[in-house]
Amino acid sequence: MNDQVLKVVKIGGKLIENEESLSVFLKDFSSLQGPKILVHGGGNLATEIASKLGFETKMVDGRRITDKNSMQVITMVYAGLINKQIVAKLQVLDINAIGLCGADGKSIISKKRPVKEIDFGFVGDVVSINTSFINSLLNQGITPIFSAISYDNEGQLLNTNGDSVAAYIATAMAKICETELLYCFEKKGVLADATNNDSVIEILDQKKYQELLENKVISDGMLPKLHNCFQALNNGVSQVSLGDAGLLKKSAIHTKIIK
Amino acid sequence: MNDQVLKVVKIGGKLIENEESLSVFLKDFSSLQGPKILVHGGGNLATEIASKLGFETKMVDGRRITDKNSMQVITMVYAGLINKQIVAKLQVLDINAIGLCGADGKSIISKKRPVKEIDFGFVGDVVSINTSFINSLLNQGITPIFSAISYDNEGQLLNTNGDSVAAYIATAMAKICETELLYCFEKKGVLADATNNDSVIEILDQKKYQELLENKVISDGMLPKLHNCFQALNNGVSQVSLGDAGLLKKSAIHTKIIK
Repeated sequence: MNDQVLKVVKIGGKLIENEESLSVFLKDFSSLQGPKILVHGGGNLATEIASKLGFETKMVDGRRITDKNSMQVITMVYAGLINKQIVAKLQVLDINAIGLCGADGKSIISKKRPVKEIDFGFVGDVVSINTSFINSLLNQGITPIFSAISYDNEGQLLNTNGDSVAAYIATAMAKICETELLYCFEKKGVLADATNNDSVIEILDQKKYQELLENKVISDGMLPKLHNCFQALNNGVSQVSLGDAGLLKKSAIHTKIIK
Repeated sequence: MNDQVLKVVKIGGKLIENEESLSVFLKDFSSLQGPKILVHGGGNLATEIASKLGFETKMVDGRRITDKNSMQVITMVYAGLINKQIVAKLQVLDINAIGLCGADGKSIISKKRPVKEIDFGFVGDVVSINTSFINSLLNQGITPIFSAISYDNEGQLLNTNGDSVAAYIATAMAKICETELLYCFEKKGVLADATNNDSVIEILDQKKYQELLENKVISDGMLPKLHNCFQALNNGVSQVSLGDAGLLKKSAIHTKIIK
């Protein structure tokens, strides 16, 4: 595998929620040549199911708190429903997928976020990736599909930001082989004007990023995503890009992150 | 691996439902020497969660129908919640577990049960097991944890009887290495008197089984389980036994099936 470029792809929540956009995405993902890894969360489905089960989604300062019930719902929805449906759909497309969370093969180890002003509950920040396990799967022609759930090495599953999981996996794998990181979401890329999907910034370097930050062009959700992009690029990942499913075919307009 | 005895263990629903009995079971499972595989369903948890989500569990002639909603709940509960919690707990016990359903690595292929008098919905009967995939995991020191969900090779997950899944896996693996099949459930074994947990039949052969059938000693739930036991024994599995978690230590009273 080491002479091929590994592609680590993150699929955003809104693409998963819509059956048609998910199908288009998975078809494009399946036609990517060479070794690949998919990382997904679950969008709003977990919140919807939690609400139907009578569990209130707690927010503090606009940020979600993962209590015990939320963690159980996230485990059901991300690692169960969404993960296994993606695996089943990819098998039809001749991708030998297996669906994993961070506890499987101790693949994604995290640390529970320490309680400071806010107790986020069962939320983990990634500390290490089991690259030898992931590499052995890839060498067998297997495509790992990771739900964004990590493991604290002490028996507890932890809810973890999917963008960060993808960046950590890509960065760790880059030590073994050339690795690209691709963030697919509902927009065509990083937008100069958030209300105009045609205002894609096609090349984004650190300097331009600082300008956008200062001018408050980057919206809340995009901030940690771009932070992950630059982190990955500065730590050995050879190419980082963002866009809609068209990104996988490289033909569509998208944002390319450069140093 | 081929010189060690593989143990295929099925854990029954009632042992899973109770946190304490599950912990005891997993501790005993983790101390089993050599390669091992665990198969589980989900007991009544799927029914409870379906009910909370407002999905009615449909029964025809006392048998459960798996409609689209039920299949989604089963995927969430079996392949998500229960499977990943078991994996996390086993990792603490130094078992390098990975949680799978039949679509992962196309490990358990089934055929949707044909509609005759009753349409059972998304229910599958096992047709083949991907033994080379399972064997390669075992050879890497990985312990596969299977939820009783199979895959129809056409993109659909199917609800499948956990006892049958365990028997099929054991029978298929018996072609590669010596294999034992162990059914762990809430009783000490096959009982001569269903109301008396001390009336364990310690040795059960085909002749005795026929006698019990004729005298209607075998209750409904036990019938397919025992059918699976004899099928496995007649198709290469070297040892088949039933009992509570104590069975894993071989010290406790249990039922041994012989030809």
